[in-house]
Order: sequence, then C-alpha cells, then structure tokens
Amino acid sequence: MTAAPQQPTHPYAGDPVFDLHVGGKMEVRSTVALTGPDDLSLAYTPGVARVCEAIASDPTMTQHYTWVPNTVAVVTDGTAVLGLGDIGPAAAMPVMEGKAVLFKQFGGVDGFPICLDVKSTDELVETVQRLAPTFGGINLEDISAPRCFEIEDRLKERLDIPVFHDDQHGTAVVALAALENALRLTGRTPAGTRVVIAGAGAAGVAVAKILLEAGITDLAVTDRKGVLHSARGDLTPVKRALAELTADRTGRTGSLADVLDGADVFIGVSGGSVPEADVARMAPEAIIFGLANPTPEVHPEVAHRYARVVATGRSDFPNQINNVLAFPGIFRGAFDVHARAITEGMKLAAATAIADLVGADLAEDYVIPSPFDPRVGPAVAAAVAAAARRDGVARR
Amino acid sequence: MTAAPQQPTHPYAGDPVFDLHVGGKMEVRSTVALTGPDDLSLAYTPGVARVCEAIASDPTMTQHYTWVPNTVAVVTDGTAVLGLGDIGPAAAMPVMEGKAVLFKQFGGVDGFPICLDVKSTDELVETVQRLAPTFGGINLEDISAPRCFEIEDRLKERLDIPVFHDDQHGTAVVALAALENALRLTGRTPAGTRVVIAGAGAAGVAVAKILLEAGITDLAVTDRKGVLHSARGDLTPVKRALAELTADRTGRTGSLADVLDGADVFIGVSGGSVPEADVARMAPEAIIFGLANPTPEVHPEVAHRYARVVATGRSDFPNQINNVLAFPGIFRGAFDVHARAITEGMKLAAATAIADLVGADLAEDYVIPSPFDPRVGPAVAAAVAAAARRDGVARR
Repeated sequence: MTAAPQQPTHPYAGDPVFDLHVGGKMEVRSTVALTGPDDLSLAYTPGVARVCEAIASDPTMTQHYTWVPNTVAVVTDGTAVLGLGDIGPAAAMPVMEGKAVLFKQFGGVDGFPICLDVKSTDELVETVQRLAPTFGGINLEDISAPRCFEIEDRLKERLDIPVFHDDQHGTAVVALAALENALRLTGRTPAGTRVVIAGAGAAGVAVAKILLEAGITDLAVTDRKGVLHSARGDLTPVKRALAELTADRTGRTGSLADVLDGADVFIGVSGGSVPEADVARMAPEAIIFGLANPTPEVHPEVAHRYARVVATGRSDFPNQINNVLAFPGIFRGAFDVHARAITEGMKLAAATAIADLVGADLAEDYVIPSPFDPRVGPAVAAAVAAAARRDGVARR
Repeated sequence: MTAAPQQPTHPYAGDPVFDLHVGGKMEVRSTVALTGPDDLSLAYTPGVARVCEAIASDPTMTQHYTWVPNTVAVVTDGTAVLGLGDIGPAAAMPVMEGKAVLFKQFGGVDGFPICLDVKSTDELVETVQRLAPTFGGINLEDISAPRCFEIEDRLKERLDIPVFHDDQHGTAVVALAALENALRLTGRTPAGTRVVIAGAGAAGVAVAKILLEAGITDLAVTDRKGVLHSARGDLTPVKRALAELTADRTGRTGSLADVLDGADVFIGVSGGSVPEADVARMAPEAIIFGLANPTPEVHPEVAHRYARVVATGRSDFPNQINNVLAFPGIFRGAFDVHARAITEGMKLAAATAIADLVGADLAEDYVIPSPFDPRVGPAVAAAVAAAARRDGVARR
C-alpha cells in the first residue's frame, strides 16, 4: 500500500485546530482481508458477481451483503454552517467530516459527508433522491431555514429510509431531555409550565414541536419581531402553522420581554441576547437554556442570578445541550430494526432515554448526561428501536 | 461506541462468497482521537469553525485541512455491471465496494461507492457535477457504452479534478503494458505490428486509442458486424471516429476472420468466441489477449497452439490483465501532485511503469506483474505524478 505523502508543513502550522485537521479527520477502510488472488476472487471478480445477481433478483439482499444499511449520508449545501451562514459546500466539509466521525464513535454508524453544489431546493431534493441507493439513511445538516423544512418533508415523502435534519431534531430531542429533568427537579408538570422559545429557525421550530408533543401547552415562540401569532402579516407558512399551535391558543402575544414576564422556562436558539431586566421578571425557580454558540442568549453567570436550572450549548459549563447525545443513537436504533423512517415517537423515546440516564443523580448542574457518557448511545438506540417497532416502521 | 449487531445468520450462509460479504466490505474510520471535551472542541465545535472560515476565504485550504484531496467517488448507474448488464444501482454496490477497497489497499486512496438512481446521461453528469465538492477525483465504473464516452467527456470538460472511466482506461493501460512487453519479447516494434481488436465497447475503444498513441499504426477494430470502417452506414459517432483512425487508413476491412489472417496481435474485449481456424491463420509468434471474463475469446489452451504470448483477464492463468494494476496508482500519482486531470501522457506513463517492472524476468508467461506485486502501486504513482508535471496539469 502506498501511503499519502506527509504534508511537510501547512499554512497554519502550530495552531492546534489546524494541526489536527491536516489531511482531514477520516478515512475509508476495508473490513475484509485481501492478501492474495483467492481473496480477490471472493471479494471482487468473479465471486462478487453472484452477490450482485442476488441483490438484482431480491433487493432486500442489500441489507445482508452490503455496507449500505449501516451508512448515513451527512448532506449539506453549505447554506447555514454553524453560525457562519452561507459559506458554500466546500467550506462546510470540516463540519461534515466531524459529524461523520461522531456518528461512528458514538453510534457505530458509517457516516459519509456529502457536500452538494446545488442552487435550489428542487436540486437538493432531486440529488439526494438519486443518491438514495448508496445510503441507509440521510442526515441533513446546516441547510438554511425555511428551505430545510420543505427539503426534509419532501425527502421523507419520497424515500423509504430514515431522513433526519439534525439541526432541527437533534437539538429538539436533547433540549426536551434536559427540560424533562429540569421540570422534575423543580416539581413542575408539562401542562403547568409556561415556556418561551426565542428563535423560529430550524432549531426553534423543532424544539417547539417536540415540546407540544411532550405535553407543553403554554408555549410562545418569538422571532426578531416578537411572538409568532396569526394576526401578524409577515409569517412564513411554517411560522404561521406554529403560531396556530402556540400563541393563538394562549393569547399571549407581544415582545420577547412581554412573554418572559412570569415565564417558567426560556429556551434561546436565536443567537440574540436577552437583557438581564427581562430575565429578572421570569417566575421563581426558572429554567434557562441559552443554546447559541459560542455566546448563549443569557450568559450562565447572569442566568444563575434568577434561575434554578441553567443549560447552554457549551462544553465549558455544566448541562451541555449537545446534539451528539441524540443523532448517533437515533440512527443506530433505526438501523438496528431497519426502520423505514424516524417517527415522532422515536424522537420522544430518544429524549426520555437520555433524560432517564441522569436518574438519582439529578441536580441543578446535572440535568443532562455528558456527551462522553458511554451509556448514552446504547440507551438511545434501544429506546428508538423499540419505538420504531411500536410505530410500525421497523422492517425487522 | 455501539457496534452494529451481529447477523445471526443470512440467506446464503455457508457459501464463502456470501459469508465474506455479510455486512459489506468496508467502513468509515476516524483518523483523530476523540476521547474528551477538549478533542471535541478541536475536531468539532467550536474549533472547526475556524477551519471552515479558512476554506471559505481560500478554497485551496481544502487541500490541507480536509480528506477531500485523497478521496475518489466510484460512480455507477448500474447499467453495465461486470458481464451482468443493466442490473441497476443497488445491485451494483458489491462491485463498487470492492473497487473502493482496492483503491485503498493498492493506492492508499479513500474510495467511496456512489450508486446513482438516474435515468439519463444528462442526469448522471449533472449529479456528479453537484457532488464534485465532496471528492478529489471521479472514477466512473460499469456505465454502458456508448453513453460512457459522452459522460466522461462532459465531466472532464466541467470538472477540474481527475475523471477516469476505469472500464476504458484501466483496461487500456494494463493491456498496453502487457503488449509493450510482448512486443519486446517477440522482437517487434509498434510501427511494424498488425493488431486486431475484437470489441468496440468501452474497453475496445480505449484500448484502440491508447495503442494508436503508443505508435501502433496498423490497427483494425471489429464489432459484431466486422471491421469498423467509414463506408459502413451503421456506425455511432464514436465508432466512426475510430474507423477514421484505423481501417480507413490501412484499407483492411471485412470480417474478424479476414483481418485476423496474418495479424500479429489479437486483443479480445468482446466477450465473443473466435474459431480456432481463424486463430490458426495469424502470423507466427502471435500475441493473443483474450480478456473477457470468465470466458476468454480464445481459450489459453487453444491460443497456445498458435501464439507465443497469451494473456487473459483471469487469475488462474499466467499474464493476468487486471485493472487493479493501474487505477490505484494512477489516482495516487494524480493526487500526490494535485493534478487537475488525467492526461493521455499520464496513462502512457502508467503503462510503461507497469511494463518496466517485469524487467529482466520477461518471459512468455510473465509479460505483466502480479496484482499483488507491492512495487506496482508506487511505481505507477511516481510515473503518473511525473507525467502530470510534464503535461502541465500538476498543481503542486
């Protein structure tokens, strides 16, 4: 084997982030030995022809004799990469490689980065559809809102493999897990809790939807112009649908400051900043999740002055809401039962499985397990697989 | 890490080919350690954002900080898989996985199988173009002729990364390597040698073209209706262009039997069968390559009655013409100098590098090295990299 030549140096040598990224973060490996002609005649021609024929006459043989059922495409068009915005598909690659590596490490799933040079929603959907025979699942990543909603919906409709937009549902699952424990700790019930979500992009919409499914009824979602409600004339179809399920029911409208007054829970997924005076008017024993990275909507130091439970997206504070707690185990569980989709029930089951791992250790600074807790992946996978069976989407 | 569950059994258990294929033949692996939050903050958020920004402001940074420059997409639409024909993209996967594994083992290149559900030539070209930011090179595989010619030409025109249709050029390079040595052994020169190629599909066209480039001037190519020449009214544009470079110049037309009479070299890439009586009329010390798999156009036992040098595509006879001698080293060499294309000069250099490894051991049953000869990949890579520099397509 000829190794790739070592880079003698590189433009940002000495910077630990860039030093680590030289040559990228992943590789492809054979799982079979090829030491001589006999191996080659089994793994490649002429032997392989019989495997191809078996799949051609019975497509379910793909599940047994290819790596497809364990693979997920990590697909982006580079339009909403981290907080950097529309930097394009090539510049998105380091994030997609990182995601693929996390899929493997925490879920045993073979993730593959697919960075697409596409202009429109139609092109993206069409391209992923053409790629579908190559993969066991599709993880959409860093695609701008509101396009991401339509793209996910259309792909779910057209494909019979799991399709999951992690920026929406990964965030939603882990936020719900942390919230379940925070409610438990503060003696609240979903039905008796007033929640405000700041941000109506991919994450905000998905967090709102999963909280509604989890029994939260008093929920307001804000964008830059205040609470989403149907009387506003400037709502996208997605925001309008959400308004009908939230403020239209409670009648609570106005600004973010207005709805924070007396609220039990604040979840920030906007990247904005909430004035301390507004935080101060929340209910006693408040719960504050400021999930923007690297700058939470409410800095933990400020949040702790008024709240009992504080979570962020950062690894350097307690209670990190990190998607890696969810997506590897969700796909692992879906793949283990050859699920044809990821249902709402599977996401809720994932959230509860994550929350339950905290168990008796539940405390203000421990409402969510660490991303490196080795119990997380298997627990999420088992819960998701069971939910897939309940929901009738498991194929084995 | 959660491992994929073991298959307790499988439909063809006990068959060595199927036993080997359970779960597929490849996996994705991380090349960086992720053992705690510090690693995560370098390889993923927040650190990775700076790498994305560096690429966004200077796209050449992709070459340093992603795995892209070492990756090749092994792309098929499943229309001409081995000798099985149009079995579709899903059934083609075992071959594409095998190819990816060979890329890694013999070239250190990260190959990734891409099986596309596309209907037309336009869709295939368009899809690969959209995928281009994901890969350092494109290896087209098992795509039916004559579509494969147009697809390769259009992709070469549109992309600034290597595009290579292995069924054409891999076969051509290795056949030329074997022929160079066979000519040496039999004391022939390219200009003084009469060659007949049976088959005008992907391999036949490419073998003919590389032989013309290598100095063979007396060349006839046949399809099922006989020698390609311009007076025939049934030629595709590709066949017509080839006729103008071959029989139109020599005036040798007629049937395969007609042109075999007195020919020095026969190269079969048709999958047909040549009657022994026709083989018997070839020149003394003839050279016969029957490359169809598993049944050569002339069985070696028959060929040896009339020829001095005999080669096949099979591993169970001497002189195996196997593409794996070429494609891993060709991409390795192209990647090592960040070549923007694979030129004719690079292919010729690969052929000569392969031929030269035989050296002083040249003999009737050794005109081409073994696929497992560890010198092959590095020698081909070095020759291809040097040719890329000479041809002005190397970017470093």
